[in-house]
Amino acid sequence: MTQGQYHLTTNYPFENDQVTSYKAWLQYSKSEGKYAKTVTPFLKTISSSCDASPVLWSAIEELNQSITQMFDFSPFISFEVMSGKGVVLQLCSESETRLQDEGYMMYTEPNGQLIISGKTETGILYGTFHLLRLLQMGKPIDKLNIIENPANSLRLLNHWDNIDGSIERGYAGKSIFFENDQFSQNYGRLKDYARMLASIGVNGIAINNVNVHQLETKLITPEYLTGVEKIAAIFRAYGVKTFLSINFASPIELGGLKTADPLDEEVKRFWEHAIKTIYTHIPDFGGVVVKADSENRPGPFTYGRSQAEGANMLAEIVAPYGGLVIWRCFVYNCHQDWRDRTTDRAKAAYDHFMPLDGDFHENVVLQIKNGPMDFQVREPVSPLLGGLKETNQVIEFQITQEYLGQQIHLVYLVPQWKEVLEFETYAKGSGSTVKKIVSGELYDRKNNGAAAVVNVGDDYNWTGHTLAQSNLYGYGRLMWSPEMTAEDISNEWITCTFGADPLVLSTIKGMLLNSWTTYENYTSPLGVGWMVNPGHHYGPNVDGYEYQAWGTYHFADWKGLGVNRTMATGTGFSGQYYQKNAEKYESLTDCPEELLLFFHYVPYSYVLSSGKTVIQHIYDTHFAGVEQVEQYRQQWKQLQGRIDKKRFDDVATKLDIQFEHAKEWRDIVNTYFYRKSGIDDQHNRPIY
Amino acid sequence: MTQGQYHLTTNYPFENDQVTSYKAWLQYSKSEGKYAKTVTPFLKTISSSCDASPVLWSAIEELNQSITQMFDFSPFISFEVMSGKGVVLQLCSESETRLQDEGYMMYTEPNGQLIISGKTETGILYGTFHLLRLLQMGKPIDKLNIIENPANSLRLLNHWDNIDGSIERGYAGKSIFFENDQFSQNYGRLKDYARMLASIGVNGIAINNVNVHQLETKLITPEYLTGVEKIAAIFRAYGVKTFLSINFASPIELGGLKTADPLDEEVKRFWEHAIKTIYTHIPDFGGVVVKADSENRPGPFTYGRSQAEGANMLAEIVAPYGGLVIWRCFVYNCHQDWRDRTTDRAKAAYDHFMPLDGDFHENVVLQIKNGPMDFQVREPVSPLLGGLKETNQVIEFQITQEYLGQQIHLVYLVPQWKEVLEFETYAKGSGSTVKKIVSGELYDRKNNGAAAVVNVGDDYNWTGHTLAQSNLYGYGRLMWSPEMTAEDISNEWITCTFGADPLVLSTIKGMLLNSWTTYENYTSPLGVGWMVNPGHHYGPNVDGYEYQAWGTYHFADWKGLGVNRTMATGTGFSGQYYQKNAEKYESLTDCPEELLLFFHYVPYSYVLSSGKTVIQHIYDTHFAGVEQVEQYRQQWKQLQGRIDKKRFDDVATKLDIQFEHAKEWRDIVNTYFYRKSGIDDQHNRPIY
Repeated sequence: MTQGQYHLTTNYPFENDQVTSYKAWLQYSKSEGKYAKTVTPFLKTISSSCDASPVLWSAIEELNQSITQMFDFSPFISFEVMSGKGVVLQLCSESETRLQDEGYMMYTEPNGQLIISGKTETGILYGTFHLLRLLQMGKPIDKLNIIENPANSLRLLNHWDNIDGSIERGYAGKSIFFENDQFSQNYGRLKDYARMLASIGVNGIAINNVNVHQLETKLITPEYLTGVEKIAAIFRAYGVKTFLSINFASPIELGGLKTADPLDEEVKRFWEHAIKTIYTHIPDFGGVVVKADSENRPGPFTYGRSQAEGANMLAEIVAPYGGLVIWRCFVYNCHQDWRDRTTDRAKAAYDHFMPLDGDFHENVVLQIKNGPMDFQVREPVSPLLGGLKETNQVIEFQITQEYLGQQIHLVYLVPQWKEVLEFETYAKGSGSTVKKIVSGELYDRKNNGAAAVVNVGDDYNWTGHTLAQSNLYGYGRLMWSPEMTAEDISNEWITCTFGADPLVLSTIKGMLLNSWTTYENYTSPLGVGWMVNPGHHYGPNVDGYEYQAWGTYHFADWKGLGVNRTMATGTGFSGQYYQKNAEKYESLTDCPEELLLFFHYVPYSYVLSSGKTVIQHIYDTHFAGVEQVEQYRQQWKQLQGRIDKKRFDDVATKLDIQFEHAKEWRDIVNTYFYRKSGIDDQHNRPIY
Repeated sequence: MTQGQYHLTTNYPFENDQVTSYKAWLQYSKSEGKYAKTVTPFLKTISSSCDASPVLWSAIEELNQSITQMFDFSPFISFEVMSGKGVVLQLCSESETRLQDEGYMMYTEPNGQLIISGKTETGILYGTFHLLRLLQMGKPIDKLNIIENPANSLRLLNHWDNIDGSIERGYAGKSIFFENDQFSQNYGRLKDYARMLASIGVNGIAINNVNVHQLETKLITPEYLTGVEKIAAIFRAYGVKTFLSINFASPIELGGLKTADPLDEEVKRFWEHAIKTIYTHIPDFGGVVVKADSENRPGPFTYGRSQAEGANMLAEIVAPYGGLVIWRCFVYNCHQDWRDRTTDRAKAAYDHFMPLDGDFHENVVLQIKNGPMDFQVREPVSPLLGGLKETNQVIEFQITQEYLGQQIHLVYLVPQWKEVLEFETYAKGSGSTVKKIVSGELYDRKNNGAAAVVNVGDDYNWTGHTLAQSNLYGYGRLMWSPEMTAEDISNEWITCTFGADPLVLSTIKGMLLNSWTTYENYTSPLGVGWMVNPGHHYGPNVDGYEYQAWGTYHFADWKGLGVNRTMATGTGFSGQYYQKNAEKYESLTDCPEELLLFFHYVPYSYVLSSGKTVIQHIYDTHFAGVEQVEQYRQQWKQLQGRIDKKRFDDVATKLDIQFEHAKEWRDIVNTYFYRKSGIDDQHNRPIY
């Protein structure tokens, strides 16, 4: 058989003991015994009626290599469909109404043919990875009857990578795309990354930081596009489109113009030329990602133009090529006076973008962070989600754990995302959940879905913390199928990653599913957020942002704490929600307690539904959070010998550090509030 | 006449309008009218019986150029003493008991000869600058009868410059010695700096950072000594000896040894060779400055050796060359647990060095920071000063305004230093002031005096803030003559720098003399210190260091604040002082109020001698401090047209920024304590 350009099983860029970590959830571990005997007959041949396109070849290569690894034989590969037991990859009729472009059917014919059928080869590839997941999980394949379509058409990742190799908010080493102001030459690694992405259904990546610095501005020029082109070729073979983050001021910085005004004719000509150049190199280029008028980035505001005017100008230019303009809604005043309690950063995205609903072109996609602030451990859902009715949108999640422990702390994020997706907005009455808005179902939008800032770097295990691989996996799976539960996803990920040992499964699952609550317990309480060290955002600093210009305050004083965002007496943010939610958040008693301090200032003595006062709740959760981390450490120790040494040691070390740092969080937060409130812990535990 | 290597009045490295700033206090402005007529006859000739050595030539050149500038004629220069009116530079008899080596006599003979006489040419140079100061200030010179000796034999400056050109805690541009990993080639500027230093009596400079990084470690090797040699030659001509900060781990890093143990024979041989190499290049090399076992620097503790063993090893090696070992006492635990209230950083220097009193060789000089912490706006005097009886020492001041507004805020430091020098230690009963300890008088020590971290960089005005030039000037003058008052020194500096306009003098003097109190008013109250942003140390952050490992806390809670350093119930730091001071600090009522919170934790309701509570004092001083800055702005405006535009604008801009930043200090500190105490301002001013 012909080998693919990059061999799947050799040339790992790391030491032997690191390879298992590197393989992540694509372990394809040896399978023996009864299960292997049962499935082997179905896998002896791989045949297809399709042309050997790159995407199809990716599917065949993946099947060939994984079957060889798992079952110790090489399947026979044929480009003529074979009868009898065996895998058949085929394109289905274009008139097949049950499938979307990226969907697939997978079923076992009575004659033993295991058909994987898609409208596109990408659909076939996704079906292939589904089959491999079943094999890794030891599931039967003799009676398959599966139809799958992705719930979201856009399932994107954003890399915040810079050409010098650094990653903004990266906690897993350096960039896999760039090093030392050059493109990285490690194409084998990029291919492995593309395999991982295809296996979870990700279909687009922006490879550079949304904060587009000087050198990165040049990525849209021929000098750099030859490098982007190579990356795009690798990902294209796995159904992943390449996007670039662009600098809105490029007409000035690259074009030598005096303006970047989106209504200026010369500016348009600059962009026409630039976009044409990109598509010359990358005919299926996904589009551009734009952070404009945000945190000191340039944008249309500079020229008195609206965000819509800025986005639409670009959209008109990329439209003939089938491209998208992904326009971030993270626009707020980052030069706020901390003394000013009327300005509320939480309101900014809604205030800026709601008036523009309906003004954006069809190929503009607004990228909206899940919450109104910035990826805190707990926030309400952004009121733009459900607010915007006539605008395409992707929800933005953050897989990289900027505020959530930076891949030192274990935080499985799927439960958080799941809560967001299940949130009832009441946008069109009951059942108007975020997942339906995001998918486009509720308002019948097309270019919709999700984007996420990814947690991947050049560490041998991709994500720094081995268990943080679960978040990348979970993002892909959840965006494909938001009906999955966090537990479903963890079952899949743990089994594919660590094998089928029941103690391993139950232990890691317990850790994952509780980890978000644990982290919340020992960090900022009841939805108030922040309390981190400014700049790098790691570790406790209760007043870290309290007197700064970022609009991120807790207003703690001797009586109590919290931000009054009510309409009645506060900033009025609660009024940005549909009535039922607005009323719920407005009311001190109806407001969900986990968001109490996001919406209300309350005294320390305020009694929660648990019967505890707020201050006692703070003390108790902070002590409990550390105890939970200690439990994770103990639980993990029980897995010694059941997991390869490297990954066992890696996680054990991380848990030890998490434990130390969780204690620091506990003691600093508790001491801060004790010193401020003067209220003793009812249990007389050490507070300083 | 022969010109010196570098011409005094031309080739300024800056724009025309910057030259006046650059000249600092050596303006030599045109003098006309009656005064010029009176003094001119005395200045027509400059004659000397000495050899034209570099130092003498510096004196002659300075006289020649300055007279030319001030009075518009060129004096006649002769190396035979001329009779009649004229300046005569001469060496006096070695048996002249009234003069020390660097002292001078300056007197007008009945025949009009203006004799400047020293035991050394350096003494003559100092006398020359004294004469020029008189001329700049318009003082009569027809009846001079002056004898001056420096009170302190060591009057040193420390540059914290790195070879890459950066300056640790530098706020006036980049290094004047180094740029881009090379020696700077701007020798003319170094000569001008040497002139400034000689004019204020500084006689030694360490040119590199006490935190000796990798490249700087190599300064003691031939590769770099050729560069140091050139610098030393420039400064030598102005009576300034060159020192280097060294890395105690050099035997490992440069010598390839496995240890830097000071008792190891190979280590000694390494240093013997290194020191010999230095003196081969710089025969009058001043010696080495060592920051050992401090803030993660290597030192003798690593090898179980005492600080004395470390210092003495080096001292034995430099002794034959007449060199010194300047050994810093800034040794403390910078990995302290903030929860631990028994460890007290303030005690560290005393605890480490007092037991070693008498153990150090004669050419070891301990460098002791003025306070027990680190150059805060207000600290008590270090108890080591007066504690150590049989050890040479220099007091360390910080001219660069690390914690004192970083040359953005106006803080004239001479009043602070003056208070330190006048402090009564009771070491040998009444009259045992710090200035007598520092000078060596009290305990009859030889190698004593002062060192200061300088505030100079490559900014055109040397110090960033034009008025911060006064601190460099003041340091030199005060260390030469600690009997001078802060006002005396400001009179001199203002007149030499800005001329004789009475409004200019009175305005700037008022600003200078009050500026320290003003800064104290709006920053950390009552001696408690810190409350700055960690790392860069600029701007308010009340809890900035509260939960960190640096041993720098205020312990503010809902009841009060301050550090209990009493013997009775606190850390016991007060017991490091002689009895009278110990009792004073120990007593809540006797403790000087400006240091109240350094020694005591008190409730916010504690009533000060002013009748105000501590909390009201905090509010009042913070409002007052900002009002004072506003007054400075207004006062400065009155000088428009009376000062050259560039310097006027420079200072005006700095005052504007100071005003903005002072408001930030005021509001953050007041709000912090209001939110913590819940006590209203009696005057209902805005607190947030």
